[in-house]
Amino acid sequence: MIYLDNSSTTHFKPLCVKWACLQGLGKYSVNPHRSGNNIVTKAEEKVYECRELLAEYVGTTPDNVILTSGCTMSINIALNGTIKKDGHIITTVFEHNSVLRTLEHLHSTHNITYTTLEPNKNGQISTKDIINAIKPNTYMVIINHVSNVTGDTQNIDAIGKICKKNKLIFLVDGAQSIGHENIDMQKMNINMLTMSGHKGIFAPQGIGALLLNDVKVTPLIYGGTGTYSDKIKQPTDIPDGIESGTPNIVGILGMLAGLKYTIKKQKYINEKIKQLTAYTRDQLNNIKNLNLYSPINNAGIISFTIKGIDSSEVSNILDEKYHIATRSGLQCAPLIHKYLGTTKNGLTRVSLNQKNSKQQIDKLIYAIKEIIQDINKR
Amino acid sequence: MIYLDNSSTTHFKPLCVKWACLQGLGKYSVNPHRSGNNIVTKAEEKVYECRELLAEYVGTTPDNVILTSGCTMSINIALNGTIKKDGHIITTVFEHNSVLRTLEHLHSTHNITYTTLEPNKNGQISTKDIINAIKPNTYMVIINHVSNVTGDTQNIDAIGKICKKNKLIFLVDGAQSIGHENIDMQKMNINMLTMSGHKGIFAPQGIGALLLNDVKVTPLIYGGTGTYSDKIKQPTDIPDGIESGTPNIVGILGMLAGLKYTIKKQKYINEKIKQLTAYTRDQLNNIKNLNLYSPINNAGIISFTIKGIDSSEVSNILDEKYHIATRSGLQCAPLIHKYLGTTKNGLTRVSLNQKNSKQQIDKLIYAIKEIIQDINKR
Repeated sequence: MIYLDNSSTTHFKPLCVKWACLQGLGKYSVNPHRSGNNIVTKAEEKVYECRELLAEYVGTTPDNVILTSGCTMSINIALNGTIKKDGHIITTVFEHNSVLRTLEHLHSTHNITYTTLEPNKNGQISTKDIINAIKPNTYMVIINHVSNVTGDTQNIDAIGKICKKNKLIFLVDGAQSIGHENIDMQKMNINMLTMSGHKGIFAPQGIGALLLNDVKVTPLIYGGTGTYSDKIKQPTDIPDGIESGTPNIVGILGMLAGLKYTIKKQKYINEKIKQLTAYTRDQLNNIKNLNLYSPINNAGIISFTIKGIDSSEVSNILDEKYHIATRSGLQCAPLIHKYLGTTKNGLTRVSLNQKNSKQQIDKLIYAIKEIIQDINKR
Repeated sequence: MIYLDNSSTTHFKPLCVKWACLQGLGKYSVNPHRSGNNIVTKAEEKVYECRELLAEYVGTTPDNVILTSGCTMSINIALNGTIKKDGHIITTVFEHNSVLRTLEHLHSTHNITYTTLEPNKNGQISTKDIINAIKPNTYMVIINHVSNVTGDTQNIDAIGKICKKNKLIFLVDGAQSIGHENIDMQKMNINMLTMSGHKGIFAPQGIGALLLNDVKVTPLIYGGTGTYSDKIKQPTDIPDGIESGTPNIVGILGMLAGLKYTIKKQKYINEKIKQLTAYTRDQLNNIKNLNLYSPINNAGIISFTIKGIDSSEVSNILDEKYHIATRSGLQCAPLIHKYLGTTKNGLTRVSLNQKNSKQQIDKLIYAIKEIIQDINKR
């Protein structure tokens, strides 16, 4: 199996991640922040180490790291936890359903309205459009850093400046950018950054984070925090009050190990994906009846359509006949497909990581060429 | 280290659980319900197998199994997802803060009121008290099946009958009962059962379930479901619409393996914990200046106080001097401590599993006797 669906989940997990997860099922299989014994203290140190490294990686402080079950949960906490009734949010057509469906829900419960900006012909959300969309009740800007559909990458730095100037909360959905793009929340004026562990930093599923900078959130999930246990009012301290329930020690250890691995290999990973993405794009560009929808990007995302065939059929043939795993359809981001005119047939998405090879891409290209030949014979 | 904190997290994880989690980081490290390739299909079969086995284990159907990040999340979904504005809920002083703090929150947002019933002298919530507490706007009864503080176990069958007769939604918090008590949701008229994987069924942290029977819930978390991806309105299908975000395949595989292990060893586990609990209670009962707060129970929970010393000091000495891990304080359940009069000093809780031994208990008893001797010398 040639696995080219890394922006869903990186199939490859480093040995250090596997080992860390096993320790979470062994040595560290306890409840941090609940009991007070020797192994719990050691587990707590590991949890704190994870907060520290994540914070350092994205330019915030450990006490601003809220550990969650993944990016979707992070987004739900971020949007609910800063809500302003009757307020307005500026966002983009690139957003994932984790943003759009939450906004739709908050529209019905809190009369939140939102504007979805379209990109210019270079796939960029223009800062001018953002400024023009600001209303008196606008309080937040939400930007998909790297599109999970096209790989289009936004200029977070420029948008952050506008948000700061206009006192808007700036939320960056980093689902596809973590591990691939340099992020400095303080320098870039990012107030909230959402991420999963299982994509760019090779952690297991079920773990992620909401990272804060100069903003507070209120709890979304209520329960035991290991603090103020005599009180039936939820504590609102950050991060404790936002992380109710037993910490996912297996996931936290896995994410810590995955992030260490990523940082150690960062240069190699970035370079390899960059080269392989360029190579894949070049090869696909030379194929007649194939439309490419992805610019050069650091996340290794390359989406395309083939004339006369549905994206899911392409993915199915690639899987069944050539044992190549890709992802088809709408990738949970309907508005960008509406914008691109690809709602009906979807896009076939190839997403790379550093473990993929030129040889694998050659096999993909060969397969696609055969698929197109077969269509022409129909 | 003698680990006696199994009702926080079972420290012991069977080899089959470790192996299953490794497969979630290897062979099955993909996104079920998102892409459509060969390995994804195999992962989806495993996810379905987990739903099937869980459903069978507690007497419901696979489509009524909502996979969550743990019992706290399950409770939050259950309470938010069935809410009736201005409604009234009957619950007990045994409840965990995951119930109490959520109810307090829903009181402030939806004017939910609730009655917390106290047990009789046998630790039982009387069905008469429940019937007497029913108001015209009562719509739900929430019962902690097995108290995480005392091990008191409620008569779910009898309470279920009352709920059915009075058309009240019956929610059972199974955090401490799963793996220890027989549960048949249909026979017992349980509408919602909440559980974690990491306690009685030896799964990793970060996975759990909300099990439904003859009731629907609305979503709490919004996002990608892999279904109706062209729609920015959240689908409300169960379970898909309630499980937004990438499934935690490591946790799901771990829970499936842990449940298989539990079922296979059920008789042995129950018998061993029963014997060891009885032995521990008997030994503790013979100690002067020690007050026992736990009845005989199948979950292996035994809590006590020692005259003249705070519970956290007892746990600290047990840890530091004797390398015995217990849990002290309020165990995230403040109202039962208020009822017992143990809020100030808390309880020291010992919680067993089948891997503990009589020899370990003898060491505990020896340690406790020494601690009491030392206090008397002060």
